[in-house]
Amino acid sequence: MKIQIINGPNLNLVGTREPSVYGDQNFDSFLEEIKKKYPKEDIHYFQTNVEGEIINKLHETGFNFDGIILNAGGYTHTSVAIHDAIAAIASPVIEVHLSNIYAREDFRHTSLITSKCRGLIAGFGINGYTMAIDALLNSKK
Amino acid sequence: MKIQIINGPNLNLVGTREPSVYGDQNFDSFLEEIKKKYPKEDIHYFQTNVEGEIINKLHETGFNFDGIILNAGGYTHTSVAIHDAIAAIASPVIEVHLSNIYAREDFRHTSLITSKCRGLIAGFGINGYTMAIDALLNSKK
Amino acid sequence: MKIQIINGPNLNLVGTREPSVYGDQNFDSFLEEIKKKYPKEDIHYFQTNVEGEIINKLHETGFNFDGIILNAGGYTHTSVAIHDAIAAIASPVIEVHLSNIYAREDFRHTSLITSKCRGLIAGFGINGYTMAIDALLNSKK
Amino acid sequence: MKIQIINGPNLNLVGTREPSVYGDQNFDSFLEEIKKKYPKEDIHYFQTNVEGEIINKLHETGFNFDGIILNAGGYTHTSVAIHDAIAAIASPVIEVHLSNIYAREDFRHTSLITSKCRGLIAGFGINGYTMAIDALLNSKK
Amino acid sequence: MKIQIINGPNLNLVGTREPSVYGDQNFDSFLEEIKKKYPKEDIHYFQTNVEGEIINKLHETGFNFDGIILNAGGYTHTSVAIHDAIAAIASPVIEVHLSNIYAREDFRHTSLITSKCRGLIAGFGINGYTMAIDALLNSKK
Amino acid sequence: MKIQIINGPNLNLVGTREPSVYGDQNFDSFLEEIKKKYPKEDIHYFQTNVEGEIINKLHETGFNFDGIILNAGGYTHTSVAIHDAIAAIASPVIEVHLSNIYAREDFRHTSLITSKCRGLIAGFGINGYTMAIDALLNSKK
Amino acid sequence: MKIQIINGPNLNLVGTREPSVYGDQNFDSFLEEIKKKYPKEDIHYFQTNVEGEIINKLHETGFNFDGIILNAGGYTHTSVAIHDAIAAIASPVIEVHLSNIYAREDFRHTSLITSKCRGLIAGFGINGYTMAIDALLNSKK
Amino acid sequence: MKIQIINGPNLNLVGTREPSVYGDQNFDSFLEEIKKKYPKEDIHYFQTNVEGEIINKLHETGFNFDGIILNAGGYTHTSVAIHDAIAAIASPVIEVHLSNIYAREDFRHTSLITSKCRGLIAGFGINGYTMAIDALLNSKK
Amino acid sequence: MKIQIINGPNLNLVGTREPSVYGDQNFDSFLEEIKKKYPKEDIHYFQTNVEGEIINKLHETGFNFDGIILNAGGYTHTSVAIHDAIAAIASPVIEVHLSNIYAREDFRHTSLITSKCRGLIAGFGINGYTMAIDALLNSKK
Amino acid sequence: MKIQIINGPNLNLVGTREPSVYGDQNFDSFLEEIKKKYPKEDIHYFQTNVEGEIINKLHETGFNFDGIILNAGGYTHTSVAIHDAIAAIASPVIEVHLSNIYAREDFRHTSLITSKCRGLIAGFGINGYTMAIDALLNSKK
Amino acid sequence: MKIQIINGPNLNLVGTREPSVYGDQNFDSFLEEIKKKYPKEDIHYFQTNVEGEIINKLHETGFNFDGIILNAGGYTHTSVAIHDAIAAIASPVIEVHLSNIYAREDFRHTSLITSKCRGLIAGFGINGYTMAIDALLNSKK
Amino acid sequence: MKIQIINGPNLNLVGTREPSVYGDQNFDSFLEEIKKKYPKEDIHYFQTNVEGEIINKLHETGFNFDGIILNAGGYTHTSVAIHDAIAAIASPVIEVHLSNIYAREDFRHTSLITSKCRGLIAGFGINGYTMAIDALLNSKK
Repeated sequence: MKIQIINGPNLNLVGTREPSVYGDQNFDSFLEEIKKKYPKEDIHYFQTNVEGEIINKLHETGFNFDGIILNAGGYTHTSVAIHDAIAAIASPVIEVHLSNIYAREDFRHTSLITSKCRGLIAGFGINGYTMAIDALLNSKK
Repeated sequence: MKIQIINGPNLNLVGTREPSVYGDQNFDSFLEEIKKKYPKEDIHYFQTNVEGEIINKLHETGFNFDGIILNAGGYTHTSVAIHDAIAAIASPVIEVHLSNIYAREDFRHTSLITSKCRGLIAGFGINGYTMAIDALLNSKK
Repeated sequence: MKIQIINGPNLNLVGTREPSVYGDQNFDSFLEEIKKKYPKEDIHYFQTNVEGEIINKLHETGFNFDGIILNAGGYTHTSVAIHDAIAAIASPVIEVHLSNIYAREDFRHTSLITSKCRGLIAGFGINGYTMAIDALLNSKK
Repeated sequence: MKIQIINGPNLNLVGTREPSVYGDQNFDSFLEEIKKKYPKEDIHYFQTNVEGEIINKLHETGFNFDGIILNAGGYTHTSVAIHDAIAAIASPVIEVHLSNIYAREDFRHTSLITSKCRGLIAGFGINGYTMAIDALLNSKK
Repeated sequence: MKIQIINGPNLNLVGTREPSVYGDQNFDSFLEEIKKKYPKEDIHYFQTNVEGEIINKLHETGFNFDGIILNAGGYTHTSVAIHDAIAAIASPVIEVHLSNIYAREDFRHTSLITSKCRGLIAGFGINGYTMAIDALLNSKK
Repeated sequence: MKIQIINGPNLNLVGTREPSVYGDQNFDSFLEEIKKKYPKEDIHYFQTNVEGEIINKLHETGFNFDGIILNAGGYTHTSVAIHDAIAAIASPVIEVHLSNIYAREDFRHTSLITSKCRGLIAGFGINGYTMAIDALLNSKK
Repeated sequence: MKIQIINGPNLNLVGTREPSVYGDQNFDSFLEEIKKKYPKEDIHYFQTNVEGEIINKLHETGFNFDGIILNAGGYTHTSVAIHDAIAAIASPVIEVHLSNIYAREDFRHTSLITSKCRGLIAGFGINGYTMAIDALLNSKK
Repeated sequence: MKIQIINGPNLNLVGTREPSVYGDQNFDSFLEEIKKKYPKEDIHYFQTNVEGEIINKLHETGFNFDGIILNAGGYTHTSVAIHDAIAAIASPVIEVHLSNIYAREDFRHTSLITSKCRGLIAGFGINGYTMAIDALLNSKK
Repeated sequence: MKIQIINGPNLNLVGTREPSVYGDQNFDSFLEEIKKKYPKEDIHYFQTNVEGEIINKLHETGFNFDGIILNAGGYTHTSVAIHDAIAAIASPVIEVHLSNIYAREDFRHTSLITSKCRGLIAGFGINGYTMAIDALLNSKK
Repeated sequence: MKIQIINGPNLNLVGTREPSVYGDQNFDSFLEEIKKKYPKEDIHYFQTNVEGEIINKLHETGFNFDGIILNAGGYTHTSVAIHDAIAAIASPVIEVHLSNIYAREDFRHTSLITSKCRGLIAGFGINGYTMAIDALLNSKK
Repeated sequence: MKIQIINGPNLNLVGTREPSVYGDQNFDSFLEEIKKKYPKEDIHYFQTNVEGEIINKLHETGFNFDGIILNAGGYTHTSVAIHDAIAAIASPVIEVHLSNIYAREDFRHTSLITSKCRGLIAGFGINGYTMAIDALLNSKK
Repeated sequence: MKIQIINGPNLNLVGTREPSVYGDQNFDSFLEEIKKKYPKEDIHYFQTNVEGEIINKLHETGFNFDGIILNAGGYTHTSVAIHDAIAAIASPVIEVHLSNIYAREDFRHTSLITSKCRGLIAGFGINGYTMAIDALLNSKK
């Protein structure tokens, strides 16, 4: 199974900053763990702070990957353009958030992209990505 | 591990009605599957259409269970009282929704209870409950 | 024809209190009149102040009665759960209100349940229930 | 009994257009049926697409008819002037809508005129007018 | 001085209906009084319940009268089209309301037309028209 | 004097949980104190997590008790049905809140029931109930 | 007739500043004109920039003057306290504004005090005060 | 091709008033130009200030013309009734505005009718009508 | 115990005006009663219609009195400055309102100052001040 | 004439995806057609998914091209930065949308950029670009 | 250069209270520092808790001082009257806040006065006043 | 001291365009002046129109510079992602705007980023950057 993980703005800092909110593991060590846990799956990772590059990557992988796991960070709450990109592609997209966005500021309670995603996983820290992979694998059965 | 699943209003009809929205498996057969899958865990199930009975069950299990999986159905969007019950108890609560509530009516985009839950899983059908059990087991490690 | 009348919160007090608003006939004498007027129809009556019991009754009668007449009282304006129950059942539901809810407080101008009902009758006092029975009988022709 | 039916904008097209929404009977044949059904009542019919002509007709009949049945169509949601006209006249006005306006677009969920009407009947198609006549006859007893 | 008084919807009923709100003098007797009081002025009166005819009259008199006194009734709160008509013409328009619209329903607290009028007089009953004439005469000095 | 205290959802947990917010005294010991302090008064206590049972109790005591002290907990902010129940009964109802609800989340700043209560006491902890009893006794003089 | 004119904040600057908005006549010369025009009336003038002093003056004159003419300036849009003062006194209060407040910023379109005034005159510059005196004199006849 | 141009309120004044906003050509000379430019097309013109007459014309031409070009003027922002008329007819309707309505007052940024039109052309002055004719001709190919 | 009562705008008129709303006792006689009832307490009274003088008095007494009882009248709903003053001082402040502000106009349902007060007492007329004194005395024990 | 076409996010997918919404022609073939149709004009094409690159291109061409045709896709509804870029440049910008954005989701009914554009063309599919070129050519005459 | 510093409500307490929010320097010692730092400038200081006295001081100094530095405290968010005073005077006004008002309560995010000020400095504590003096001196060059 | 200036969208055009709004000095000459004025400080300059590149630069400099001066231009009002970046870094960020954003369009009155900045300076043109440098230098003392 071919899976693309896309991380949006500020997620490059996870693990080194604000561990009380986002956990203390960074994505590099997490990816190694994941590759060990799912040795048969082809898992790609991409991080960018640029909204348009999230869209580029969704276009690039959205027609030939089996699933996309997207944490759009702050763009979750403001981006009609990412909403449209998810609607335009064929692969299922699962939305992940490290923290429980409903326990934080009001502007994080509105999502412009969830409606076009297959499902939403929020509040489980970095483990949420593993849950998303499991959900993709499970939906294939 | 002692886990309580609480299903709120109208979830007694899942499996027999509107399978295109909620899937075609009912909770009875699902619970049997779960018990086979997690033979070591002590999993309890409760369904009610009465808001106050959800609160009663949260109080009853909220101090001696290892985790609660809650699908509050329509009360998700209207109940301050359930919000307060989750805040008052000690056990972690994971919120589950069968459908992607952000792809449905506007009044389903507001949640009064998510802010007090550990995390949120939505849009994965009945499989969301298994994901929640995994998350509880995983958080224990 | 099998018809269920469901009355929600505070409608047990009709006839004895606030006759200027709700009329001076109570439901007991009204039901006797109705049974005389429609001797061939099988008309059931249920009143409760508990939101979840309205849902229970909708589930119980919603697959084997020919029609349901629902006055959800104050829950009309706040209950997503009753909305979902009406959407989940097969029998047509007709919404009735004794008073003209649009001539009263602002919070009575919003309804969460009407969108799933067959039709709405408001402002005709206790006579609205007879109009609803006529509408059900008429739709059968 | 002298009854005036007033139909507002676009109701002249009922029966020939969009039968799935508005039914397939036009008002001409309906009026013939009504006159047969209520041979003793003096029932007048008026249709106009002009807001001010609805007001003119309300003024003209509002002091000497026993009741008015009003379907103000799209003006229901925008007309303070019709609201004022209903408030100014003596005859009771019953509001009728063919469709369940709460199951349609958001802008149909607000009514500027209902608060001054005797009652509201919505969602019963062309039969709603018969229900309104019955309600007027019944209130005379 | 050439002055046009334009009265909008339901103002034809003033004097005969709701005297507690609108006073007990009708416009016919009031116009006679006015003509006596201002024998040198050329005062025209027009009443209509049709929004578009208010616009027609504004166009007709808006380039060759010295002033227009407008009570747009219920259209005050809903008519962009009258707003545009006042903006398009050359004669000054004075807005008059019989009652204090801010002491009535919320929907009367918003005006779409006042911003294009010279001034506003509200709450002085039929006397407001005389005040408006005085204001027009005074502004000519 | 016959007084009914009605406590709504989650108030059964007061004293054992979150003492920093709600105080560390539970209602059992408080009721004993009260009975000692007001030996001549007939004070009844009822707690429920079910909205409809609050309504039932209001109906049951609302015509033959001298006063009702109501802390509707989370239902305060969401229940039109309780509002209607208070409006329907004859006994005066005094609203009490343990905490200062205006110093907490935004959704606690709106009350649907206060408008039908005699008065409101908030922020004085469990002592607020004593203040309410005093107010009832005082209003009898 | 005993009349009090009360001018609120910044109206002491009228005549010397922003003549294009507020006219070029100051109140001193205007008051002289008024006293000549109404030699029989007892007209008092008071200006203050302090909200509470407007209330003091309303209390002081509100039980023994025949009328009060109030231009509350910027407090018009923000003062519940002045609203309450007008409601508490016996003398009729006429609200005057120099400019057409509806042709200016949005925050000037809301008035907290108009609902308790007898009437409103806006947009006629300093002449509005004369119109208000005439209205008071006229209402006495 | 049979095309109906419908112009709403105040558009009769175009060309003679406010040329800086609406251009300096009136519709008479524009229609002559159009007829020369499209000698083979059957182009009809209708202007009215009455909302209901726009609806009448839409009904009259909406089943037998190849296209309708509608500039509803101020009714664009307030008319549910015109919305319904466009929805009810068969001919495609193209909405035209002379000015860029989004560069003007806030109340012009909301349209009640655009959702039922084929397309929208705004900001190109009187040339917008030619663009609409071209679009109709083009869609026929 | 040293207690300061601060009454805001229009409360100087209590007892002589609108007794149906505010009761018929004025504060002078009430203060005499209070001094008799609490002979050991040092109770000060201050009334002003000026917002800033309420702040001055809060500053003056807020560091050396045992408690402050504040009825800010109309400033309750509009004053950030009083909110800040209460936050800045050390003495506990209890908010009192004579009437049930939630049973009155909408603009009285919002409070800018309650969040910084110890507690709120509303709807008990002049007796609310006694209740506040009792609450202060009680909290000292 | 030198014309720049700028297409924003997801418009690279037009023609190959969702032809029912966006048509089945891609921009490559469309550009060839355009170059044949306007052989004398110098037409440039640019597409990007990055908001800032739209701004870069607007700056680059906004002082030396005769016109810009902009379809900002999802950024239309969220970008103050593009609004500012259009305001800052000298070339006229015409806004084009393939679909009728007012017939789609609510978040597409708000535009942050239209107010600074010359005009708006929406709902004509890929043909809208040709209409925009014609409008630019026409405005040059 | 003649400069007036005006401090609004509660700023008399700065330095002695809540040093974590407002710093621990009071204005007396700060003014001494300032006078040493700017020995050539004529710097006046005024503090009041009364809204109207801020307006008085703005009038008094607004035509003969070279600049005014205003911290209106809580009135910043509620005072149309101060807005109007700043608009009415000739001297430039610089708005200063000690704290970052956007990092505090929601009601501090709205300012009614900033739009009429020359500029805004917030979040730099007592140093913001020095920055404002520098800005005034700099703009004179 | 190591200071990074980050300028967002459209600020590359300052000095050459719209001098009445933004001043007539461009950043190149301004930077030269600054370097002369602060010869000991290490001041870096970066401008981009791409939101994500602002975030990149904040990450790059946010852990090793002594301060960042940020003018996020139009992204100020729409970017949760920049808000999160400022929250994630260690260096203090000072927000600068050339113009008084509260004297411009409504959409400029909301800021998503100010709450995470140290302070805000707006309305002083290009001089605001110097003020920000002074503030950084001053806070180091």
